[in-house]
Amino acid sequence: MKREDFSNTVLPQPNLQLPISGPPFERPDPALIEQLQQVSSATASAMLHKMGMRQTFIQGPLPRTPGKKVVGPAVTLQFMPQREDIASGLGQENVEKKTALWDVFETVQHGDILAVQAFGDLNTGCMGEMLVTYFKGRGGIGIVVDGCVRDWPNIQKIGTPLWTRGFTPNYASQSTLFPWAYNVPIACSRVTIIPGDIIIADDDGAVMVPINIAPLLAKHALEHEDWEVFSRIKLAEGGDLKKYYPLNDEGWKEYEAWREAQR
Amino acid sequence: MKREDFSNTVLPQPNLQLPISGPPFERPDPALIEQLQQVSSATASAMLHKMGMRQTFIQGPLPRTPGKKVVGPAVTLQFMPQREDIASGLGQENVEKKTALWDVFETVQHGDILAVQAFGDLNTGCMGEMLVTYFKGRGGIGIVVDGCVRDWPNIQKIGTPLWTRGFTPNYASQSTLFPWAYNVPIACSRVTIIPGDIIIADDDGAVMVPINIAPLLAKHALEHEDWEVFSRIKLAEGGDLKKYYPLNDEGWKEYEAWREAQR
Amino acid sequence: MKREDFSNTVLPQPNLQLPISGPPFERPDPALIEQLQQVSSATASAMLHKMGMRQTFIQGPLPRTPGKKVVGPAVTLQFMPQREDIASGLGQENVEKKTALWDVFETVQHGDILAVQAFGDLNTGCMGEMLVTYFKGRGGIGIVVDGCVRDWPNIQKIGTPLWTRGFTPNYASQSTLFPWAYNVPIACSRVTIIPGDIIIADDDGAVMVPINIAPLLAKHALEHEDWEVFSRIKLAEGGDLKKYYPLNDEGWKEYEAWREAQR
Amino acid sequence: MKREDFSNTVLPQPNLQLPISGPPFERPDPALIEQLQQVSSATASAMLHKMGMRQTFIQGPLPRTPGKKVVGPAVTLQFMPQREDIASGLGQENVEKKTALWDVFETVQHGDILAVQAFGDLNTGCMGEMLVTYFKGRGGIGIVVDGCVRDWPNIQKIGTPLWTRGFTPNYASQSTLFPWAYNVPIACSRVTIIPGDIIIADDDGAVMVPINIAPLLAKHALEHEDWEVFSRIKLAEGGDLKKYYPLNDEGWKEYEAWREAQR
Amino acid sequence: MKREDFSNTVLPQPNLQLPISGPPFERPDPALIEQLQQVSSATASAMLHKMGMRQTFIQGPLPRTPGKKVVGPAVTLQFMPQREDIASGLGQENVEKKTALWDVFETVQHGDILAVQAFGDLNTGCMGEMLVTYFKGRGGIGIVVDGCVRDWPNIQKIGTPLWTRGFTPNYASQSTLFPWAYNVPIACSRVTIIPGDIIIADDDGAVMVPINIAPLLAKHALEHEDWEVFSRIKLAEGGDLKKYYPLNDEGWKEYEAWREAQR
Amino acid sequence: MKREDFSNTVLPQPNLQLPISGPPFERPDPALIEQLQQVSSATASAMLHKMGMRQTFIQGPLPRTPGKKVVGPAVTLQFMPQREDIASGLGQENVEKKTALWDVFETVQHGDILAVQAFGDLNTGCMGEMLVTYFKGRGGIGIVVDGCVRDWPNIQKIGTPLWTRGFTPNYASQSTLFPWAYNVPIACSRVTIIPGDIIIADDDGAVMVPINIAPLLAKHALEHEDWEVFSRIKLAEGGDLKKYYPLNDEGWKEYEAWREAQR
Repeated sequence: MKREDFSNTVLPQPNLQLPISGPPFERPDPALIEQLQQVSSATASAMLHKMGMRQTFIQGPLPRTPGKKVVGPAVTLQFMPQREDIASGLGQENVEKKTALWDVFETVQHGDILAVQAFGDLNTGCMGEMLVTYFKGRGGIGIVVDGCVRDWPNIQKIGTPLWTRGFTPNYASQSTLFPWAYNVPIACSRVTIIPGDIIIADDDGAVMVPINIAPLLAKHALEHEDWEVFSRIKLAEGGDLKKYYPLNDEGWKEYEAWREAQR
Repeated sequence: MKREDFSNTVLPQPNLQLPISGPPFERPDPALIEQLQQVSSATASAMLHKMGMRQTFIQGPLPRTPGKKVVGPAVTLQFMPQREDIASGLGQENVEKKTALWDVFETVQHGDILAVQAFGDLNTGCMGEMLVTYFKGRGGIGIVVDGCVRDWPNIQKIGTPLWTRGFTPNYASQSTLFPWAYNVPIACSRVTIIPGDIIIADDDGAVMVPINIAPLLAKHALEHEDWEVFSRIKLAEGGDLKKYYPLNDEGWKEYEAWREAQR
Repeated sequence: MKREDFSNTVLPQPNLQLPISGPPFERPDPALIEQLQQVSSATASAMLHKMGMRQTFIQGPLPRTPGKKVVGPAVTLQFMPQREDIASGLGQENVEKKTALWDVFETVQHGDILAVQAFGDLNTGCMGEMLVTYFKGRGGIGIVVDGCVRDWPNIQKIGTPLWTRGFTPNYASQSTLFPWAYNVPIACSRVTIIPGDIIIADDDGAVMVPINIAPLLAKHALEHEDWEVFSRIKLAEGGDLKKYYPLNDEGWKEYEAWREAQR
Repeated sequence: MKREDFSNTVLPQPNLQLPISGPPFERPDPALIEQLQQVSSATASAMLHKMGMRQTFIQGPLPRTPGKKVVGPAVTLQFMPQREDIASGLGQENVEKKTALWDVFETVQHGDILAVQAFGDLNTGCMGEMLVTYFKGRGGIGIVVDGCVRDWPNIQKIGTPLWTRGFTPNYASQSTLFPWAYNVPIACSRVTIIPGDIIIADDDGAVMVPINIAPLLAKHALEHEDWEVFSRIKLAEGGDLKKYYPLNDEGWKEYEAWREAQR
Repeated sequence: MKREDFSNTVLPQPNLQLPISGPPFERPDPALIEQLQQVSSATASAMLHKMGMRQTFIQGPLPRTPGKKVVGPAVTLQFMPQREDIASGLGQENVEKKTALWDVFETVQHGDILAVQAFGDLNTGCMGEMLVTYFKGRGGIGIVVDGCVRDWPNIQKIGTPLWTRGFTPNYASQSTLFPWAYNVPIACSRVTIIPGDIIIADDDGAVMVPINIAPLLAKHALEHEDWEVFSRIKLAEGGDLKKYYPLNDEGWKEYEAWREAQR
Repeated sequence: MKREDFSNTVLPQPNLQLPISGPPFERPDPALIEQLQQVSSATASAMLHKMGMRQTFIQGPLPRTPGKKVVGPAVTLQFMPQREDIASGLGQENVEKKTALWDVFETVQHGDILAVQAFGDLNTGCMGEMLVTYFKGRGGIGIVVDGCVRDWPNIQKIGTPLWTRGFTPNYASQSTLFPWAYNVPIACSRVTIIPGDIIIADDDGAVMVPINIAPLLAKHALEHEDWEVFSRIKLAEGGDLKKYYPLNDEGWKEYEAWREAQR
């Protein structure tokens, strides 16, 4: 061997089998999703905060398809920092095919939202036009990436609702990350998402609702949206801000009368 | 008391009365505002720099209502880092009602621009749809936030010109900040705004014009905009760049002749 | 006037009187300070968190005088973004003399800690050797700056305990900030400090203790430090981690017996 | 002289002549540009990565004219940190005129793309409406700035495709940078661009293609775009993801047959 | 229930059992560790790069115990963003006890290095004096945290070699993170560490060596360190830089002769 | 060729010759350096600011050899973003040898300070022990890097005064940068340094003094340091802060008398 020339060395691989995947999870009752359709990410985030959950807003990914709103269970995909020894002796794109990136898409079901842990990276294009096309074909309804996608010139034609940090021409293993696991708990920005948790995403951003709390949220959020309708009417009529938003005791009494009258 | 269990402790409050507010201020002469309507944020920033003012551009808040331009006096609102002892024993939303957030809106007059110090925070939604509705109802014409607002899906329907760092579903005291004072001098990004200073905001961003300098600026900026019309014509005709932009002595002489001829 | 040459223009000043200052405040009972001398910043921060105060650690300023610990009431100084119109026609150093920077030092009393709001700025040297000398002469015991100081080659000889973001050769109004107010509530990093609140600072950093909560903290923190002594002994003897740290019910019983035996 | 008053001191200038400029460069064969028109920034970046070039994506500047795509040789402009001694005794705008900023525009040829090193600065408006107008008049087709431009309200009417970090009202030497050199190698974000290298920019961002590698890229990228057409068709028909993207051996054989059949 | 008052609601917990832990792993041959003792982090990082591994330097954690060097297998601990529903109804410190934080320490063996994923967070104190004491007692030799520890005033007395982002008084679940899993692959800054991989840490920082590559590295790194001894001698004698560092063919021949002569 | 396999492709190189170097420059009069030895970086930065130079403090590189102070002319070294086509077909370390990195060291003269443009990068080790050894051998007296060095465990033994952003085990072309040019103007943090400009560096950081302004600075800075001696004495005696710092007219008169008396 030439001095310190390792160009023909195939690196021994680490002792683990990729991709890593978690157990399959049950999709939620469609009635629950239907109820949550009427809840904005703002109301969800606020109600969860009052229940004691402080980190539900996935800060970072911005809405890239303005005006779109989606609600559905989270399928998760986790990137990790690049480890070339895992890919030793293979071209990168073939590596991707053997990783979580290809496999996760084959688990997508109708109504799913794909949530991706990518450490906020601005140089890794976690997926491109081909995979998003396939995703849509399987019934996926939205994608939230704490990082970037590539092929935006083509993806925007597909129309899948999308929240990302940005765009890049680079592919999924071209930069400092590569696809590692799917259907495992992930850190999407500063929010822990467990597969099956609900995502509510709109122009304010994406919010995670723990699946076990979702029914409680649905019940109270709908009540909340209801009295806000009354507040809006009153404020539009020039009503007193401190009486009508949020409703003080007096305002609440008026609201209850108004609600009774609506029925 | 159970060991180190403070769940029923009501924290003693600090020795101060919130909200803090500064003295009311006089609104500027409408004629001054009318003159400044013709001045772009770019010309304002450049002229103020030549006068020795280096920090007038409020870097950070981006235009969220493209194509909109507003000019008006600044009403100020200041957030500070959260202090739960101030709110001890109260729900957060009720705290907000007792803070500067509700009060400042009741001081808004026709033509005012609300400027908000929020330390560039991306997790605090300084206001939402209800308050912006109320703001518009009082005649407010624009909002500049060194931070975020919430309820963007609804706020965009209201149409109030808006410059922010972004959007979030979180409410005003849900994260690390809360409303503290109004009508006091604030640091909006790296610009000190004194209540009553003029804001000129357009697609380049928002610029602060000290109220006492505004008349001087108006006079010179209008002259500046005038010779730029001439430059634009000359450059469009293929004129010499170094002669016509900015005008050198020769170019200036031509301009004066042209201006004379216009009259 | 030459075209757009404002070199001889003295800018009209804004309608306010600098420096701004808040009301004087009472210093705490020396007995309280003495009790808190035994409390580490780590215990203070943890206990306050259990009481519901989440933002008491002044993240950013690092200890520059390793091994030093100080406890005392906060005297506050607030920088704001530079406004050259306030200083129009004066040299900068003379401006400083007329600002909060000189005045605040004249209010310092024995045992005070100076806390400075400087927006984390790395280019503004909020004070230098001369002022720190004067501060020490008045009995000041420590300085916490959310920004930098200058003259570090000389300040380190004075020995005043110091927490800062860094050092710079620039003076206090040389860069984008300048001294604005003193003895007013400040945002030191993401912590609101009201004049008279207690600062506990050591090698972990600086923590703010609201003056009205300090007696409650002192009481419980001393108890906490006491059982930790017992835990330390037990762990050093190879005791069970989950029994002895923190003490579970069984561990607590043992501790009470041990404490009884100490008396 | 008054004590430490240097207001009338004209600073001695440094020993160099501005602007610095590199040698003129040859424009590429129009046939090459035509071929590259069919290559997306995503394909270019991916192919170059496979060839061993890791830093070709100019991360930071975002597309400001959505849907626009440009391909052409890079004319370069380099900003450097402000040195007031170079401008001593002159007004800033006159300084600009003597710098690389004015000169570089006079070298622009039909089909050129202007690439600007500006250290990602968000306070310097590297050029405004007048210069962009002049640029378009000379046949320039796109601008990539690792920083900002000013006059966005007017520039957007001109329609020149633009990639920038943002917008600002400040002019080119108003903040911490000023124009220094042109037609020299530059660092545009983390990509070294040598004058005459090819820029491919679209909604994914801007990619640099070294001029000497461009013919090799064109050849392989067109082949790549060709088999992707086949993949897209197959995936749309519900084809197997791992067979058709990227094509495995079996998929490739089918593709070759399909391609043959097309002829 | 009072309107939107959830203060007595115990949140339903998610469907997973904490802490998550990976399979136990075998410790390396002591002879391998002994060989690597002679390899600096700089040589390790450089050799691994030549073998094709680009991300082995754990950028961020700085040496806090200057002059210390450790080599050993990585025990891993993973923090994730806070999920209060997991801790619903429990005090935070009791939660910690049930998490990976307490469990991981009970798996530590003689010679182990603890590597912690903490997202670079500056507000979470991943461990304190008590746990580090326990760690040392079990034979742990070093700790690398992509975040902070607390109790630095006391930890520094223990003397365990430490690499961290900083220090904080906050405890492990006081801020935005909490302990989640151990003995699983982690992202420590931008390096993927699999339990059992080797850490080499000194004043340059910490480097990860994949366990399966470590023998190859040891062999070549020792050769490398050997010829560098010769280079150092020659350069100290005033030898030609380009001949002796790194050794060109001529230099290598001299080195081989020198090495022969040494035997 | 296998499909899209470029592993044997030697990339055509760009049309330029590395390393790029500027013209040699004259070293300053030793008497000037001797005078400036008595000037702190703080005084230099302040005086230059009063003369109108705003960007002379090289913010970012911290003192790594506490208590050391150096004054001397700047030899410059410029890194640029990595371009693998320049190194195509060569191992990286051989590339380094052909670059500015090796050449610049051969130009170092007695009393020189090496200033390095490295874009604040924390992953590139701009130089290591061998080169610093060689540097010291040639009489170099200090190094300022807007980035990192490697081999800190060994470099600290050499004792050369050093200001850097940090340390890394990575070598000079291992990450995203590589050595490009020397003896050319550089951007060291946000300061433009022209070869031959003076660097004054101490525990406050490093300041650039334009060579043509250095004599003017020396004259006034020495006067400044002189009256500060008087101020220090007066303040130590309990003198009035506003009279003695900085000296007002009355204070200045006293100072002149004192100075007279000293002679």
